[in-house]
Amino acid sequence: MVEKASQNKLHFRPHFKTHQSAKIGNWFKIYGVEAITVSSVRMAEYFAVNGWSDITIAFPVNILELENINRLAASIKINLLVESKETILALGKKLTNKVGVFLKIDTGYYRTGIPSGRFNLMESYIELFSNYETLVFKGFLSHTGHTYKTNTSYEIHSHHFDALLKMKAIKQRFKKVCPTLIVSIGDTPSCTLSDNFRGVDEIRPGNFVFYDLMQHKLGVCSLDDIAVKLACPVVAKHPSRNEVVIYGGAIHLSKEYITNIDGKKMFGRIIIRQNGERILLDELNYVSALSQEHGILKVMRKDLKYFNVGDIIEIIPVHSCLTANLMRKYMTTDGEEITMMNC
Amino acid sequence: MVEKASQNKLHFRPHFKTHQSAKIGNWFKIYGVEAITVSSVRMAEYFAVNGWSDITIAFPVNILELENINRLAASIKINLLVESKETILALGKKLTNKVGVFLKIDTGYYRTGIPSGRFNLMESYIELFSNYETLVFKGFLSHTGHTYKTNTSYEIHSHHFDALLKMKAIKQRFKKVCPTLIVSIGDTPSCTLSDNFRGVDEIRPGNFVFYDLMQHKLGVCSLDDIAVKLACPVVAKHPSRNEVVIYGGAIHLSKEYITNIDGKKMFGRIIIRQNGERILLDELNYVSALSQEHGILKVMRKDLKYFNVGDIIEIIPVHSCLTANLMRKYMTTDGEEITMMNC
Repeated sequence: MVEKASQNKLHFRPHFKTHQSAKIGNWFKIYGVEAITVSSVRMAEYFAVNGWSDITIAFPVNILELENINRLAASIKINLLVESKETILALGKKLTNKVGVFLKIDTGYYRTGIPSGRFNLMESYIELFSNYETLVFKGFLSHTGHTYKTNTSYEIHSHHFDALLKMKAIKQRFKKVCPTLIVSIGDTPSCTLSDNFRGVDEIRPGNFVFYDLMQHKLGVCSLDDIAVKLACPVVAKHPSRNEVVIYGGAIHLSKEYITNIDGKKMFGRIIIRQNGERILLDELNYVSALSQEHGILKVMRKDLKYFNVGDIIEIIPVHSCLTANLMRKYMTTDGEEITMMNC
Repeated sequence: MVEKASQNKLHFRPHFKTHQSAKIGNWFKIYGVEAITVSSVRMAEYFAVNGWSDITIAFPVNILELENINRLAASIKINLLVESKETILALGKKLTNKVGVFLKIDTGYYRTGIPSGRFNLMESYIELFSNYETLVFKGFLSHTGHTYKTNTSYEIHSHHFDALLKMKAIKQRFKKVCPTLIVSIGDTPSCTLSDNFRGVDEIRPGNFVFYDLMQHKLGVCSLDDIAVKLACPVVAKHPSRNEVVIYGGAIHLSKEYITNIDGKKMFGRIIIRQNGERILLDELNYVSALSQEHGILKVMRKDLKYFNVGDIIEIIPVHSCLTANLMRKYMTTDGEEITMMNC
């Protein structure tokens, strides 16, 4: 991702919400990364304490956290996202230090942001910023999250291209009044698959650090690219119904699922160990149900022999961000423990 | 639940996996509760440190945790669940202190346990126990979790009654060889709705401490009975599509959902505050989507006026156990903070 950013002359501001770890964050420094994205004020506080001094909080400002934001902005560079007049007025009134502000643009995900065609609204907000010394307009930020709802990589390219056009039109409209403005985009599917970033100044992907089954299903990564797994002990085996029970449930994996090739919900893929080797079983072996701490594996009859009480198997998670968030620490393949925030 | 247990002459061993809190655990002591159920060895360790000395770990033993189990069993009464010969042999070999063992019986949930009709298998396991001084056979334990998959309270009664018959047959078969054996059952739907516990000696419900939307949908509790909510700030409002964005996503509520009356996924119900009063909005106002930290509320046009940026609203969770597990602390309505394990 560093290479891709560099080839396309993009500022790289990776999202750290996937790993939430100071140590993993430090690995990015080796590649020259100096600025990051986070999804909450608390996460900004954690990474600020751990040496990061240029942070975009990519979540619509929660104006109830202005005290914490003021504290952060007193010591490091903070960028905020706004999309409403109410928020701008609250910020203008209560901010005690300068912050960068991005207008959040909705490119079609319909989650948050100003619809990409509403130039007049954007203009009125930019004018509002100029009333306050503490609000430094930085540019326009979008997250084309609807790439996660696609079935083909063609659709990902199509959503991405559509977002590029929309963001470029905004840039052209406003670069006269603000020549330094930045266009920042974000999602891992587009950033991974596309080589076209015309008009974009900054990318903020996050999930690519681990990837997961959801990204694999979208055609964004190979299974080998997935860098995080959940190690689970086998606690019971039920050959009569081709099932294995693991200690690994909704409080470890989350309840995120994708639809498997058999049309059923799938909560994870299975890797077993055999004679010191790790073998990925095909998708007819999978995590088929989760309760609080139990995971149920559907296993093909011929593969049941690989599962014995007391074995440790590995589950490839559907959504690595949520699994990491639940587990709150990692173990490397060398046995080193890596902590996260709130760990 | 204490009253129901007492009326039916049942030992009450509540499950603490829902609240996971020493302080909330202490409230049970006021009602004379002395024995509890937990879902992991770590949870047993936490409650042992917090003064509980009679704990059933209601999860098939993970034989990789025998060191911790030995440590626990050295100082308090521990009961374990077994359902396979492999586990019994591993326990017999490595346990250094006496533990109580329950045979886990499957009454039709098909998650874990010995099928309820396999008397010969049960007999062979009970004989195995007698080879080891450390394994003290306590009785039979079941969790009729398929009551959670029902659509009518009639079905809950039916599954419960079916489980009673099965457990009673097992009890009759084995009480000659073991007159002190206990039959322990568990699920909140049956324990809440039924008044028939013939043949049962102990109940272990857990979720009833808070209840949630899932229990409400099953007809197990009223909305007023639900004792835990997630307080969420409003961060954006999109009247053009009747949506409100809250700071409250999958890392707070979990991705558990139920199907709403409009046929869509529902991740929570909404309570707003109006002139100091808390008002529950009807089910056409609800949490319709979650990403990592964002929650999207579908709100009826007439109710949009209740939502403003900076407001705090309350979300009734679909599954209180998972929401509590993610949040890791509570605030009482008096503003007191209550901590949980790993908090």
